[in-house]
Amino acid sequence: MSASAEIHDIEEGLALQPKFDASGLLTCVATDAQSGDVLMVAHMNDEALRKTIATGDAWYFSRARQSLWRKGETSGQVQRVVEMRLDCDQDAVWIRVEQTGAACHTGRRSCFYRAVTATEGGTQLSFVDADRLFDPKAVYHK
Amino acid sequence: MSASAEIHDIEEGLALQPKFDASGLLTCVATDAQSGDVLMVAHMNDEALRKTIATGDAWYFSRARQSLWRKGETSGQVQRVVEMRLDCDQDAVWIRVEQTGAACHTGRRSCFYRAVTATEGGTQLSFVDADRLFDPKAVYHK
Repeated sequence: MSASAEIHDIEEGLALQPKFDASGLLTCVATDAQSGDVLMVAHMNDEALRKTIATGDAWYFSRARQSLWRKGETSGQVQRVVEMRLDCDQDAVWIRVEQTGAACHTGRRSCFYRAVTATEGGTQLSFVDADRLFDPKAVYHK
Repeated sequence: MSASAEIHDIEEGLALQPKFDASGLLTCVATDAQSGDVLMVAHMNDEALRKTIATGDAWYFSRARQSLWRKGETSGQVQRVVEMRLDCDQDAVWIRVEQTGAACHTGRRSCFYRAVTATEGGTQLSFVDADRLFDPKAVYHK
């Protein structure tokens, strides 16, 4: 196939041809199926992607721990996938999920609990939707 | 600072301390401020992040072209940032945007125009919200 035919196939085809990065990972964005809020951004390797599709539970690959991980297996804060979408160049997926409790390891519903705003000569963060739904010390025992 | 104090500072602090990857990039998720749909996933280097914060227009860093890029500078399909959020470990940002026209270079509103579903023994893609809002050949002249 020519390069342009190959790009056309990836962008317009109906075959899953995930484009993993040099570490073998795709980017995954999980949003709340009800509110539309972004809950987290994480990574999937081939196995995590296939397990997520097959089981309807969100599986990820932890870059820090270098291991496959079913979301909520320690915390109980599981994600059931309502819909999975794939992007144009097949290097990112978007999952709309029913999130039990909180997605973030800090105990917040979403990992994105701080807003960034411009100030004169700089930037400033402020907490938004930052209530904790669980105590991470109690859940992770560390 | 100890490692745990440093993590606490990154997760609970009000200072922007972006954790760029080995290529100097953050992951950025852009969602439609009205519908909540994920429009695209792209990357920002330090300059793109600072220009986005300072100007309120979305700027990215293209890994393919290795260059800074103001979203819409060629296509006219600009993104005005309504809100920027930062995630717990400061390696990803979420921007809620007012998208002019279409975010995807294929002419679709969102890059995520295909759904992934499980079939017996495999997966299948299907087009969802895949109408083109512009003709990429006319816009990009290629």
